[in-house]
Amino acid sequence: MASTFLVSTRFALKRAGRTSLNRVRCASTEAANWNHQDPLNLDSLLTEDERAIRDTAHEYCQEKLLPRVLDAWRTEEFNHDILPEMGKLGLLGPTIEGYGCAGVSNVAYGLIQREIERVDSGYRSTASVQSSLVMHPIHEFGTDAQKEKYLPRLATGEIVGAFGLTEPNHGSDPAGMETTAEETDGGFIINGSKTWISNAPVADLFVVWANCKWDGKIRGFLLEKGAKGLTAPPIKNKVALRVSLTGSIFMDSVKVSHDALLPKSKGLGSPFSCLNSARYGISWGVMGALEDCIDRALAYALERRQFKRPIASFQLVQKKLADAQTEAALGLLASLQVGRLKDAGKLSPNMVSMVKRNNCGKALLHARAVLDIFGGNACADEYHVGRHAANLQVTNTYEGTNDIHALILGRAMTGIQAFVN
Amino acid sequence: MASTFLVSTRFALKRAGRTSLNRVRCASTEAANWNHQDPLNLDSLLTEDERAIRDTAHEYCQEKLLPRVLDAWRTEEFNHDILPEMGKLGLLGPTIEGYGCAGVSNVAYGLIQREIERVDSGYRSTASVQSSLVMHPIHEFGTDAQKEKYLPRLATGEIVGAFGLTEPNHGSDPAGMETTAEETDGGFIINGSKTWISNAPVADLFVVWANCKWDGKIRGFLLEKGAKGLTAPPIKNKVALRVSLTGSIFMDSVKVSHDALLPKSKGLGSPFSCLNSARYGISWGVMGALEDCIDRALAYALERRQFKRPIASFQLVQKKLADAQTEAALGLLASLQVGRLKDAGKLSPNMVSMVKRNNCGKALLHARAVLDIFGGNACADEYHVGRHAANLQVTNTYEGTNDIHALILGRAMTGIQAFVN
Amino acid sequence: MASTFLVSTRFALKRAGRTSLNRVRCASTEAANWNHQDPLNLDSLLTEDERAIRDTAHEYCQEKLLPRVLDAWRTEEFNHDILPEMGKLGLLGPTIEGYGCAGVSNVAYGLIQREIERVDSGYRSTASVQSSLVMHPIHEFGTDAQKEKYLPRLATGEIVGAFGLTEPNHGSDPAGMETTAEETDGGFIINGSKTWISNAPVADLFVVWANCKWDGKIRGFLLEKGAKGLTAPPIKNKVALRVSLTGSIFMDSVKVSHDALLPKSKGLGSPFSCLNSARYGISWGVMGALEDCIDRALAYALERRQFKRPIASFQLVQKKLADAQTEAALGLLASLQVGRLKDAGKLSPNMVSMVKRNNCGKALLHARAVLDIFGGNACADEYHVGRHAANLQVTNTYEGTNDIHALILGRAMTGIQAFVN
Amino acid sequence: MASTFLVSTRFALKRAGRTSLNRVRCASTEAANWNHQDPLNLDSLLTEDERAIRDTAHEYCQEKLLPRVLDAWRTEEFNHDILPEMGKLGLLGPTIEGYGCAGVSNVAYGLIQREIERVDSGYRSTASVQSSLVMHPIHEFGTDAQKEKYLPRLATGEIVGAFGLTEPNHGSDPAGMETTAEETDGGFIINGSKTWISNAPVADLFVVWANCKWDGKIRGFLLEKGAKGLTAPPIKNKVALRVSLTGSIFMDSVKVSHDALLPKSKGLGSPFSCLNSARYGISWGVMGALEDCIDRALAYALERRQFKRPIASFQLVQKKLADAQTEAALGLLASLQVGRLKDAGKLSPNMVSMVKRNNCGKALLHARAVLDIFGGNACADEYHVGRHAANLQVTNTYEGTNDIHALILGRAMTGIQAFVN
Repeated sequence: MASTFLVSTRFALKRAGRTSLNRVRCASTEAANWNHQDPLNLDSLLTEDERAIRDTAHEYCQEKLLPRVLDAWRTEEFNHDILPEMGKLGLLGPTIEGYGCAGVSNVAYGLIQREIERVDSGYRSTASVQSSLVMHPIHEFGTDAQKEKYLPRLATGEIVGAFGLTEPNHGSDPAGMETTAEETDGGFIINGSKTWISNAPVADLFVVWANCKWDGKIRGFLLEKGAKGLTAPPIKNKVALRVSLTGSIFMDSVKVSHDALLPKSKGLGSPFSCLNSARYGISWGVMGALEDCIDRALAYALERRQFKRPIASFQLVQKKLADAQTEAALGLLASLQVGRLKDAGKLSPNMVSMVKRNNCGKALLHARAVLDIFGGNACADEYHVGRHAANLQVTNTYEGTNDIHALILGRAMTGIQAFVN
Repeated sequence: MASTFLVSTRFALKRAGRTSLNRVRCASTEAANWNHQDPLNLDSLLTEDERAIRDTAHEYCQEKLLPRVLDAWRTEEFNHDILPEMGKLGLLGPTIEGYGCAGVSNVAYGLIQREIERVDSGYRSTASVQSSLVMHPIHEFGTDAQKEKYLPRLATGEIVGAFGLTEPNHGSDPAGMETTAEETDGGFIINGSKTWISNAPVADLFVVWANCKWDGKIRGFLLEKGAKGLTAPPIKNKVALRVSLTGSIFMDSVKVSHDALLPKSKGLGSPFSCLNSARYGISWGVMGALEDCIDRALAYALERRQFKRPIASFQLVQKKLADAQTEAALGLLASLQVGRLKDAGKLSPNMVSMVKRNNCGKALLHARAVLDIFGGNACADEYHVGRHAANLQVTNTYEGTNDIHALILGRAMTGIQAFVN
Repeated sequence: MASTFLVSTRFALKRAGRTSLNRVRCASTEAANWNHQDPLNLDSLLTEDERAIRDTAHEYCQEKLLPRVLDAWRTEEFNHDILPEMGKLGLLGPTIEGYGCAGVSNVAYGLIQREIERVDSGYRSTASVQSSLVMHPIHEFGTDAQKEKYLPRLATGEIVGAFGLTEPNHGSDPAGMETTAEETDGGFIINGSKTWISNAPVADLFVVWANCKWDGKIRGFLLEKGAKGLTAPPIKNKVALRVSLTGSIFMDSVKVSHDALLPKSKGLGSPFSCLNSARYGISWGVMGALEDCIDRALAYALERRQFKRPIASFQLVQKKLADAQTEAALGLLASLQVGRLKDAGKLSPNMVSMVKRNNCGKALLHARAVLDIFGGNACADEYHVGRHAANLQVTNTYEGTNDIHALILGRAMTGIQAFVN
Repeated sequence: MASTFLVSTRFALKRAGRTSLNRVRCASTEAANWNHQDPLNLDSLLTEDERAIRDTAHEYCQEKLLPRVLDAWRTEEFNHDILPEMGKLGLLGPTIEGYGCAGVSNVAYGLIQREIERVDSGYRSTASVQSSLVMHPIHEFGTDAQKEKYLPRLATGEIVGAFGLTEPNHGSDPAGMETTAEETDGGFIINGSKTWISNAPVADLFVVWANCKWDGKIRGFLLEKGAKGLTAPPIKNKVALRVSLTGSIFMDSVKVSHDALLPKSKGLGSPFSCLNSARYGISWGVMGALEDCIDRALAYALERRQFKRPIASFQLVQKKLADAQTEAALGLLASLQVGRLKDAGKLSPNMVSMVKRNNCGKALLHARAVLDIFGGNACADEYHVGRHAANLQVTNTYEGTNDIHALILGRAMTGIQAFVN
């Protein structure tokens, strides 16, 4: 049975009194009461379960993902083992109850994304798509049959999902969607194309959003790989997110049965609900990437000597580190608060815009700043931070650019929409 | 008896089921579940007591301080009524138990500073000095007799306190202190000078730090106004903090009895404990000032029309507002977390450096940014934001400049002190 | 005769082989070939005349304006001696040929503004208005009689001019002008109000722009103080530009004769031509203010010791100085190039937008940055830099805000107007 | 004979009255008098020769380099045709008189670097090394025999040069050099290693700097490929500058004859003279890269539509473009001025630090800013701007990091060295 590792781990860890990762880290700092990797003591705000889940994810990511990341980045090749490995640990669709999913809190979900992105934003993207953009809409808008059919296999990573919303001519503006669904004898015919779709070239299942001709509403459809007229060629030679696979989806009169419709989806609110879930996860993920940049830059600065001193002793280096550390600490507290409100059913999408935008923007800014600490070595991919910085440019742009989220917040404050201004 | 309003209010409010300020604000926003003045729902993390205290402080500040602030700014004149008014409400030394003080949480203390500084950083400075820099060290390092003698009168605002640490030649570097205390027949002789001392020209009581000649340790002394050789002339024509009075302290062989020594103070750690308390309060205060700037800029942008539209509809205006709002929300969450840890006895001074530095720096940056929304009117003091921006330059500098706190954090991260670099 | 000092000085200086200010400064630096006050050798690009004019202006401003500036700032009082003093030296309307004006190059004009604003942006504003906004339009759009009547007295500073374009409801958007001119028996009747008008409360002559009812075109009118229905009350308690006087102009059916019309003015292009001239001068002026901030911060940093070293030895201080110095050097080169093109008749208003915006924005940013070097002393007006920083916020806003000029440049690049966006 | 194309072109172009590239561009803009690609009319400050050289370089780079760049970036493979092609046009060592070199001005040299880097910083690096770091020191410090032997073949690109200064442990701090030269029978023995050396893996000739054991002075040596003990393995998988080849140099008792010594080199001043020449060229080059980013972002913004409008109509997009354009215009004027002073023998190295630092920092900042205009497409290498942004991170770091140049300027201003602070 696909019972996840997480589900059982949560309690096993609790019983065993396992020293959490965090406490280990703590011990290695001088000030008994201050951990420079957790400067505002986020740890104290987590439940024991959440800490255990984080530690499980951390261990997996450091032991299994980190050793593969350089090769994956250099070759842009997708590793088919990874989603099943994550599935085994319960890292996919973890907030869903049942269907072999772990049923953990949204905070725990965020902590998982943070650990994955601590290694690479591309791995986190792959996992986010599976969890927030494929499993979530099936769970939210699907029939019982659809849930039974797909969720367990998505949860184990046996099948790979993709989410088709963005179109070549409509990025920030999904309301302009050109893909259509037309009702026909025994089902629907889908026509259109999607682009910049994570996982698409290897996806077994596509959640595709289309404008329904009969009422002009946008709805989601489940397309399976191999459908006639459906192709998903990869986009290669990316300058970032090279460990995740990206592609287009072309649908040339793809015929699906009535079972393919996600019946509870209706209007743009449905894909936006997926995006909100994903964006919330991104807000945690990018903080993990930034934390890794800080850890690596600090270690480098302590070891690297110039003018007979470690460069960590230079004011201009310390300022870069302190700035970055501060933003990581604040961003995490904000995501935690949003996660708690989400768990409590008090979430507003504006809050997600705020933390997605802030955390992506700050992660990018400070990853770039600490990258400069590496001097010439910034250029070598073995130091990892250049890769993070390249990735974070994309995370700052996808699922709502920094500017678009500024205007979402602006609209929320002023009551005036300024997207077209 | 001077039992404070706060102490009783806390329960009165609870009983009366008074609609809190926050709920009132909430109702005026469109989205039922999103309050643009509390975008990450800080309110949900406060206790009912804390909300009541905040509302009390808010009401006082808006009704009593705001109408006086322009005139005080223009004339640089100290209003002797204000500390007694604050004292009556329990806003002075509020975390102290007994001595007529309110005995509230450190979070409540922070909320009070935020409300005062929402009107003006100078008023908050006056109150901070009384609470964190005068009442705190007496409570922490004083004898029972000293506490009994001074705390109740400081709590009511009957007497005004000042804190003398900074010297003309030693701002960021208090270890270089030149003021000395020398033991003598029946007491001590104090010589030296202090500068940029808030409240000094009107202070009845001075907590002065001096290097004790007999053992080279720094200790605190209580000097009363009128002591021979003690003068405290004002520094006038300030470009900021004009509603608080600032001065020097000159001590020319000031003779005090043995009772003047704060006996539990020893070493720089003692004044630093005061500064940490004050800095924590500043981290809340400046967020109040920034929030006021945002509220005023938003109101102005909605009302001001150019090119036949409210300027709130312009992307460049919305971005400024969204940036500022985000930093206010994050800074407040961070201060709250630090306050909770302080209440739980888990505080590290590094955390205070982080929130003092971040919140002051961000408040200054974004107050200046939203000031530009006012166009030419930025120059008129009636719009208040120019005054806030001028004040915030000082708060970003005093009690540890932004750079010094960066280097404190840098030292904490790297283990290497870089102040002299 | 009012022949200006400048006109004769230019040649006197040339003959006497007077050691220019610049050469004096040069000698005081260590590197024979590098002058930290002129790091890219702007001096080598000036003519001997231009250097002489600059030195004359420099000397006057340092000897006569600097000693008065603190008192003027504190009291907001206008000094009626200053314009006549400037007039005597030929600093008013200096690019005009004849009418007692110096007839110097636009580069020389820029150098003069830089020297005045090195002392205070308010003094430069007073002079700019007289030269670019009053003498320029009379010279450009006036009749011979108007020129003969007003220019000589404006050139000597005997009379003070003001320029009324901006209205309470129309700052960035002058096309919305509400002031009207109506033709009547023997003249015109002017109705409307203007605000944020430099010099207005003391002006003898007002160049007022009004919408002409008979053809809907905007034209300029010359109004003299004392006209019935004309008042110009001051705006007091400004937070910046306190040494220049600012006011409103209220025109309640002010009746003027036909002679009051500037006959060659027609359409918004006319006042814009004045603004372009003024903005060009501002681009030079603010660089002077920034240079003064740098000079003062450098001197302070060399003298001020903390941790037993001059703070000039700290990396974080050196970086602030180097950043500011670089922007001053680049901004000056850009203004020089624009001045040369203006003299050659090759100017585009877009170039003026670029240097006005860049130089004002950079001056403000770096004045604020080096202000922080002063620590607590930043607050004392005796250090001058806080005053500059306050002033520069206004210069960055008036005569086209930073954002408006960004959109002017954006329109020029894209061909798309985005003011209302 | 290898007489360069440039040498003859300069005159041919002049005679033919060839329409310069610039005039062609000009015509395509709306405002007759404003060219958005040359907003401050830099063109007017160039000689006809310089414009002709620029146009030649521009044409070559756009026609021959641009079509190859994507493939080179993807594969990290060095194209051996390119240096000979550049050599044929006279683009290598162009400021040298004789030896088949073009003998053009330093301004012309800068214009060439700008055109090459408009395509890719890596191509410019390859050319810079050949010209400034190999040909320059041979010309400056070499014997006549060395010049005769190497310069003509370097000028034609027949042989490739590399410059070995930086060591694994000494980047910003070359004074710590560990590579040694020891005099021996009939020559010298060189031991040590160098890293991050452009062109090294394909170099035929190495200018290597070593600490001479006999007097502790640093001198340059010419090593030829194939020398026993000399290896130069490539550094692969770079995240930037992928079209230029980078490697290490390992010297294990490499024996060279006395002829290998550059006899006029002595002390760090010698390699610094090379670096100053290269840095000057970089200051021009990066402006070319930034200009290409702006041109591409502008074209994209005009074509890309969202919300039924070109995104070029959005304020937030226009601001990014205007900011970038302004910095490009200012940086170019500054480099021009430094070039003119260099040609006039009035250069100070501090000036080079200023323009290298400013232009690299601004190019990086604004390339990143306009990259965001591309939204998701930023990730596709076909849009080129992501590649420029990655490259510019390296140019901002190599040949003196941004921070090191800040401290060089800081030292020049304050007289205090703060590198170790």
